[in-house]
Amino acid sequence: MKKFVNDPKNFVAEMLEGLALANPTTLRYVPEYNLIMRADAPDPNKVSIVQGSGSGHEPAHVMTVGKGMLDAACPGDVFAAPPTDYVYETVKLVSSPKGVLLLVNNYTGDRMAFEMAQELAEAEDITVKTLFINDDVAVQDSTYTVGRRGVAGNFFVMKAVGAAAERGADLDEVARIGEKVNSVTRTMGMALTACTPPAKGSPLFDLPADEIEMGVGIHGEPGRKREKLMPANQIVDELLTAVVDDLPFQSGDRVALMVNGLGGTPISELYLIYGYAHKQLDSKGITIARSYVGEYCTSLDMAGASITLVRLDDEIESLLREPAEIAIRVF
Amino acid sequence: MKKFVNDPKNFVAEMLEGLALANPTTLRYVPEYNLIMRADAPDPNKVSIVQGSGSGHEPAHVMTVGKGMLDAACPGDVFAAPPTDYVYETVKLVSSPKGVLLLVNNYTGDRMAFEMAQELAEAEDITVKTLFINDDVAVQDSTYTVGRRGVAGNFFVMKAVGAAAERGADLDEVARIGEKVNSVTRTMGMALTACTPPAKGSPLFDLPADEIEMGVGIHGEPGRKREKLMPANQIVDELLTAVVDDLPFQSGDRVALMVNGLGGTPISELYLIYGYAHKQLDSKGITIARSYVGEYCTSLDMAGASITLVRLDDEIESLLREPAEIAIRVF
Repeated sequence: MKKFVNDPKNFVAEMLEGLALANPTTLRYVPEYNLIMRADAPDPNKVSIVQGSGSGHEPAHVMTVGKGMLDAACPGDVFAAPPTDYVYETVKLVSSPKGVLLLVNNYTGDRMAFEMAQELAEAEDITVKTLFINDDVAVQDSTYTVGRRGVAGNFFVMKAVGAAAERGADLDEVARIGEKVNSVTRTMGMALTACTPPAKGSPLFDLPADEIEMGVGIHGEPGRKREKLMPANQIVDELLTAVVDDLPFQSGDRVALMVNGLGGTPISELYLIYGYAHKQLDSKGITIARSYVGEYCTSLDMAGASITLVRLDDEIESLLREPAEIAIRVF
Repeated sequence: MKKFVNDPKNFVAEMLEGLALANPTTLRYVPEYNLIMRADAPDPNKVSIVQGSGSGHEPAHVMTVGKGMLDAACPGDVFAAPPTDYVYETVKLVSSPKGVLLLVNNYTGDRMAFEMAQELAEAEDITVKTLFINDDVAVQDSTYTVGRRGVAGNFFVMKAVGAAAERGADLDEVARIGEKVNSVTRTMGMALTACTPPAKGSPLFDLPADEIEMGVGIHGEPGRKREKLMPANQIVDELLTAVVDDLPFQSGDRVALMVNGLGGTPISELYLIYGYAHKQLDSKGITIARSYVGEYCTSLDMAGASITLVRLDDEIESLLREPAEIAIRVF
């Protein structure tokens, strides 16, 4: 295993400590509960937004805590759901009179942890709603899910509900917006290589040198099929067709287009993918109003990419255009 | 080779087209000369800033074109200097009455292309200054250089001169600032794996599974030595010692600390590196006033990282804090 690791047991804690040290005025790391929160949370005048999941998907979700997005993120260990009591403590720490919205990518372990945490919080009179995100069109059920998986499209839900909360919307309204964004967001990804979890020390699955996994999950779960390695444009065609046909997206739609890297793919390749996807959508009469190219939801060091489309209306587009101040800085 | 590529000959052009399509209001792609420029350049009231280099180092430099940083970038093919006439045409396109500052990482091929382009431009009465960046402490001379190499520290030079130009500083003043930032910036990197250029289709050099290249160049040039794979903190200690001892950085200094990924390393590992580096510097009495964690200057899909320190004074810190609007978007 060639990674920057000390003791794999401390991988997540050391990452979180680094994240907080790099953002001392905006973020707070609470080691007892393995969480990252806004230094100024909770704000009693806004709904608090919390997301958690296994680690290994950074920047999701610990690096998207900040004004205009999450108030806190409570990650589990690599590819493992956070413990219920950590989620519960996170909710208590950011509890606001306006309520707390929990965002959960649809995996069975995460659902259980968050649903139980919600019950515990409600028993203490904290108002909580939970929203499940399931944008991945690849498969109906999967290794760790009943129903579709939640993947990179969760960024659009986080962004929209974060912006709505900053504007002062109440909990029902923030949850309505989150549901709406999730309902018009579709993603599919594929792997060129497997990923290597620090504690395992070897690739999570075998993928021959001339094969790719189309529809892969962000924990290396099987996708739709193995295929022979092919030129980038053919890969994009296959991903785009799956995503476009699912909603379906149609001529006349305005969309946000995201090309998300899975961790080991350089941004040069992501822009190459973006260019072809943009032109293909354009040729279908679909207008790209917002573009996102980079790493948003990764799978450790996996080489690969996903494509996400969001069908925009004025409300969603306006929320996506709001500023956000998160940990990922690019000058 | 597992990459998102169609025809390797078109790799750079397809990436640049994607970059421009994703940023239609701010960037312009000029395919004849393989360049990316600000859509609103040149601004006659400011010095224009241009950087070029081989491709394969993205986001450097084509993704750092924008208000507050570069007016244009003219990349060559992967790891190859841009042709002189492309540099010359770039200078003409962004020529301003206040002059043009060329930034060049110190590699022999790039120096030749830019020096000749400067001569051609001056023959047409365009005022040009050229600044060479050489922040890499690893080796004195290298495969493609006489003198030290220019690597990720070039970002701080770009940022400072870009901000000074926006403030209206004249060419001599902008060049003075660039020289000053370069003189207090030091970097060293290391590779866990080799990188694979699209046209070669196989790793550029051999690095056994249990070895790392300490002091590697961003084109895979040899560094100081091969070492056995070691825990992350030991790697950081070695990089930091080399960087700190070189200027040297001393107790009482205020610095910017950058942990730069080389393309294949996920951001989780970069924050783990950052945390330990931050604490080590703190223990030496060095104050970290600005933190940068992410990919700034890569080597295709190489797994690895570099550490950069910049000794700050009020002038440099103020310029680094200015806003910049570049193509890399994170909501």
